Amino acid sequence: MSSRFLQTLAGEALSPPPIWLMRQAGRYLPEYRELRAQAKGFLDLCYTPELAVEVTLQPIRRYGFDAAILFSDILVVPDALGCDVRFVEGEGPKLETIRDSAGLSRLSKAGLHEHLAPVYETLRRLRRELPDDTALIGFAGAPWTVASYMVEGGGSKEFQEARTLARRDPVCFSALIDLVAEATIDYLKAQVEAGAQALQLFDSWAGVLPPSEFHRWCVRPLKMIVTSVKETHPDIPIIAFPRGAGVKYRHFIESVPVDGVSLDTSFSVDWAADQLPKVCLQGNLDPIALLSGGDEMLNDTRHLLNKLAGRPHIFNLGHGVLPPTNPDTVKRLVDFVRSYRPSSD
Amino acid sequence: MSSRFLQTLAGEALSPPPIWLMRQAGRYLPEYRELRAQAKGFLDLCYTPELAVEVTLQPIRRYGFDAAILFSDILVVPDALGCDVRFVEGEGPKLETIRDSAGLSRLSKAGLHEHLAPVYETLRRLRRELPDDTALIGFAGAPWTVASYMVEGGGSKEFQEARTLARRDPVCFSALIDLVAEATIDYLKAQVEAGAQALQLFDSWAGVLPPSEFHRWCVRPLKMIVTSVKETHPDIPIIAFPRGAGVKYRHFIESVPVDGVSLDTSFSVDWAADQLPKVCLQGNLDPIALLSGGDEMLNDTRHLLNKLAGRPHIFNLGHGVLPPTNPDTVKRLVDFVRSYRPSSD
Repeated sequence: MSSRFLQTLAGEALSPPPIWLMRQAGRYLPEYRELRAQAKGFLDLCYTPELAVEVTLQPIRRYGFDAAILFSDILVVPDALGCDVRFVEGEGPKLETIRDSAGLSRLSKAGLHEHLAPVYETLRRLRRELPDDTALIGFAGAPWTVASYMVEGGGSKEFQEARTLARRDPVCFSALIDLVAEATIDYLKAQVEAGAQALQLFDSWAGVLPPSEFHRWCVRPLKMIVTSVKETHPDIPIIAFPRGAGVKYRHFIESVPVDGVSLDTSFSVDWAADQLPKVCLQGNLDPIALLSGGDEMLNDTRHLLNKLAGRPHIFNLGHGVLPPTNPDTVKRLVDFVRSYRPSSD
Repeated sequence: MSSRFLQTLAGEALSPPPIWLMRQAGRYLPEYRELRAQAKGFLDLCYTPELAVEVTLQPIRRYGFDAAILFSDILVVPDALGCDVRFVEGEGPKLETIRDSAGLSRLSKAGLHEHLAPVYETLRRLRRELPDDTALIGFAGAPWTVASYMVEGGGSKEFQEARTLARRDPVCFSALIDLVAEATIDYLKAQVEAGAQALQLFDSWAGVLPPSEFHRWCVRPLKMIVTSVKETHPDIPIIAFPRGAGVKYRHFIESVPVDGVSLDTSFSVDWAADQLPKVCLQGNLDPIALLSGGDEMLNDTRHLLNKLAGRPHIFNLGHGVLPPTNPDTVKRLVDFVRSYRPSSD
């Protein structure tokens, strides 16, 4: 296993740790903006292997990250299920709303693989083009997060419609969660077969769920997905990102057989180092730190590296790279992490 | 001390616990909507003692809550500092943005008490009108939350502008935080002098802050405010609500000399019961539970009451009452809490 990223997920504590950044391919890169302007729309970019491959590779060329993550979006799954998804410039995604069994009955995973074939093709091409020591990460959204976009018809602050449906009509909401979970299992297995060497599950809105619902709508479906994918592909490492789970991170790790968890920006790495089981931790530099850059960014980075030294750690941000980030700042961060040696804070 | 609410804040574990609900006066009540329609605007309601008193009393008459909370808004402080605040129907608050020292220099606390005199008058009238056993709570927003509204010019999802300013120009941002903190100290002391018997500090956006900034922008200013208010009024109990602080709740409680903390909806009460110091806990039923109502709401309520039985607990929600809540459901909740006796779950 030549990839430092995969070694770390297998339980080795490497120093310095491997590094990649969520949304490392994206609007902060001029070469991304140029290519984005050529595509008809955002989903067109995700579904065109030539473009998606190129976008995925852009940050690898610039920074030599230890892992490349498939360029795509978590909403390709509802799109593949027949729930209309559009990306409106400056407004975020708009989805056909699914709020009852009639809406649910319009969805089907019959055409899933056909719809997502370009994604698998992207992965195949990437595996050929990437250096051997650069791991290829596939991903999907977690059912709670994906289902809440479908119920809300887009993004939201508190996901009140989704949370209300989940309580008022748990049978309908469960059926939606199960459908997304099953589609996600099929999708992730196919990603592995197309060349993904690790998988990440994004539960971006896990943080709005109170404990009992966190268990029901985040922990349970993710356990089902991870277990099922590993039944078919026992060696595939899986990272979960239950963003905002707070004190519930521990319950999550104890319940879902993941190889790693990604920690969000607000999470205390001191607490993580003391209190979380010895799973691989990924994260969690504040993306805002890259906007100001400078020595404070490096101080925060050093603190994080020191705190997690001696345990399996994949350096990353606590959330995605922000569009106004200066690409030179990313270079400075990567160089700093790569030259890091443990020290006192 | 005849108020069960104040007894609990003083450290007594009462069974059943006292109850009040955040945003217990508000749009879910038909009598509120009727009165709201008579006021010129939302701030007009806050600044007109006759109306603010009436709105504060409405839920007390209906449900006999153990505490009444002054009807007002956290944004009256920036408004009193000279930062223009408008409430646009259906859009939330719009503020004059403050992003540099020029903006900061337009603000002053010279006219604070004159501007906020109607709020003090509301408190004086309320103290006369409320039953002796109904405690009167005054409140203010915490500096981080109030300052982020001022920097963003309104609400936001991640408060990126405020977070960036705090890192890029900590001198300017510190000055803004200090100004808000000093105004808040003056404001809260005057609230106590006008009749408030307890105070609550709302740090609604504490959850977006990573640990070091949580300490700097949430813990530090709140410690300053609580310490200063208690120097003048040693017996005034103070509750803080660092919403979304997750694992950092413990650090907060260990650092800020509050009498109680309010727990948000996502917070695990099991964890709180095990891990938090023996401060009075307030919360944290999910406001969504009141939308579906029914036995599941009562089950969640019973779980919460059982978990916190034996320690000082003020029953409340994890966030405000939602506008589509049925007033009868609130009645059912209050009756259930009032008739509660500890049992196994």
